[in-house]
Amino acid sequence: MTEDDDAFVEHRKLIIAGSGISGLSAAIYAGRSNNEPLVFEGDEPGGQLTLTTEVENYPGFPEGISGPELIQNMKEQAERFGAEIDHGIVESVSADERPFTVTMKNGDVYTADAIIAASGASARTLGIPGEDELMGYGLSTCATCDGAFFRGEKILVIGGGDAAMEEASFLTKFASKVYIAHRREEFRAEDYWVDRVMEKVEDDEIELMRNTEVTELHGTPEDGVDHVTMVRHPEGHPTDKLDDPETEEFDFDVGAVFYAIGHTPNADYLEGTGVERDDDGYVKAKGGTGGGQTATDVPGIFAAGDVVDYHYQQAATAGGDGVKAALDADDYLENLEREAEATEVEPAAAESDD
Amino acid sequence: MTEDDDAFVEHRKLIIAGSGISGLSAAIYAGRSNNEPLVFEGDEPGGQLTLTTEVENYPGFPEGISGPELIQNMKEQAERFGAEIDHGIVESVSADERPFTVTMKNGDVYTADAIIAASGASARTLGIPGEDELMGYGLSTCATCDGAFFRGEKILVIGGGDAAMEEASFLTKFASKVYIAHRREEFRAEDYWVDRVMEKVEDDEIELMRNTEVTELHGTPEDGVDHVTMVRHPEGHPTDKLDDPETEEFDFDVGAVFYAIGHTPNADYLEGTGVERDDDGYVKAKGGTGGGQTATDVPGIFAAGDVVDYHYQQAATAGGDGVKAALDADDYLENLEREAEATEVEPAAAESDD
Repeated sequence: MTEDDDAFVEHRKLIIAGSGISGLSAAIYAGRSNNEPLVFEGDEPGGQLTLTTEVENYPGFPEGISGPELIQNMKEQAERFGAEIDHGIVESVSADERPFTVTMKNGDVYTADAIIAASGASARTLGIPGEDELMGYGLSTCATCDGAFFRGEKILVIGGGDAAMEEASFLTKFASKVYIAHRREEFRAEDYWVDRVMEKVEDDEIELMRNTEVTELHGTPEDGVDHVTMVRHPEGHPTDKLDDPETEEFDFDVGAVFYAIGHTPNADYLEGTGVERDDDGYVKAKGGTGGGQTATDVPGIFAAGDVVDYHYQQAATAGGDGVKAALDADDYLENLEREAEATEVEPAAAESDD
Repeated sequence: MTEDDDAFVEHRKLIIAGSGISGLSAAIYAGRSNNEPLVFEGDEPGGQLTLTTEVENYPGFPEGISGPELIQNMKEQAERFGAEIDHGIVESVSADERPFTVTMKNGDVYTADAIIAASGASARTLGIPGEDELMGYGLSTCATCDGAFFRGEKILVIGGGDAAMEEASFLTKFASKVYIAHRREEFRAEDYWVDRVMEKVEDDEIELMRNTEVTELHGTPEDGVDHVTMVRHPEGHPTDKLDDPETEEFDFDVGAVFYAIGHTPNADYLEGTGVERDDDGYVKAKGGTGGGQTATDVPGIFAAGDVVDYHYQQAATAGGDGVKAALDADDYLENLEREAEATEVEPAAAESDD
């Protein structure tokens, strides 16, 4: 890619891929450091937090704040300090030479001295029959987005973590009854969420289906989900034990299904750059203590937020790590400038040595 | 320490030492996890952020927020979720047996299953004559707190890093002239800050005193600082060269002195617990990626914020790491409960083996 190419748009000091909490937090700091960041929103502008009605645990808002409002605040704050936020999905990055080449899905090409991967993670699916056909038609990965479409219906939530408990609690507002199907006996959600769900179980608003998995979704895009096929085994993980005589299969009538079974990191555009990722696709950042915690294996590419963090995954942790990425990128960019200046001086110095 | 002891107050699941951004962020999450945290405010309630008039870079507040207001928000938020925030300074922790014993400066004794050290760092001082007497009376460690008291006066800032440059720039708003005394020739501040200071040097608002140190502060609490004694050596570090004929001593009239010579982590209460600290006293947390990033060398003692972080030191990073500490502590406490339950069951199981 050269600057003569028609697809070439411009060179930037710093490109940030992703406009969720980590990307915007990075943009605020990068703006203040005069690195004039260009933030690409990706295909889920604002990231996962925009799917959350009420954020109660982001430190600083005692009454809570809506996800979209918190994102909007950070956007304004980033722009105030000089960040540019643009539509666009990063398709690939080339680290073969410097500056990096960033190719967008629409074919546009940018170059950048440094990149922050803050591209988050997307909801995971089960890959079962009926899924592709019914996604968006009775099957959803976002209760806050779609819950209200299913007033008075039986709603099935799949998962056993915080997200599943939160979505199930929320969906009781609309559902005639919410069912939580979890493949194991134990939930791995916070006590806070388990407690809230158990209260609703006592009130008959939620029913727990432990050691149970869905194997097929039945319905049509026109009429939505009609019923699901489920399997249950007293020791859990029934789909691993389909031939076990104790595994029981049954059909179950529901009006909607919500997946809350985790996320997959969005980092395929880093393939071929040399940035290492773990088996689940999460970007490996250096971590540790002191500076450079967000460095990847490729100098100049930094990563923060849910594209790295397979464990904590909170707004506050994504924000803090986004800030670290901006500060790490700034150190890198300053070194780059210093080296460039040193190189300019060198030839003359070499001459005087003769 | 036994529960019969008069000094014994109570047992807590989780004690958090420190009520700055990291401690309160931890408290919000720990409250939500039903760990009923007891937060000790320490001798600087609210931590260093309370010394900041305007926080512009904490993600979520596009117009900025005052430091004390942000702290107050987090306090309310933590209390809303069940955190108890109490006066008290932790004097020592014993990890010889579990639960931990936490002894307070006033002699009160608590026990705790887990501890989060979020006790931050405090401004460093020089230990020179006049210091104790004049601290708060013309001598300050916080320009944003105290600058406005010295309108029209000559103000001396001591230090050569970012903080010194930032404080000196800020103080030009009030001072007739700002002097920066630095013990070496070179400043270690970021270019950004050195550039800003040099502009003000050209405008005659700031004067640099390189290779210069203060050896004594003169004045009274009633009338504030009157003058200081200084030493200068052309090769720097003059106080190391007091007998050198090139070292020159002189008195210098100033109306106020601001220290900006770094911070010392507040973690002496962890001495003897086995928690490792680096040469500067910062607590070593495990770091890395995945869970347990805030774990120290002692299982059950976690650490976050400026008591660990000698590099980033931002409100957002302290907050994010505080949240991580609460989640790590919760994992630890849940394991502890599970183990306790298993131990209760074990004897019976052992019997049936006979």
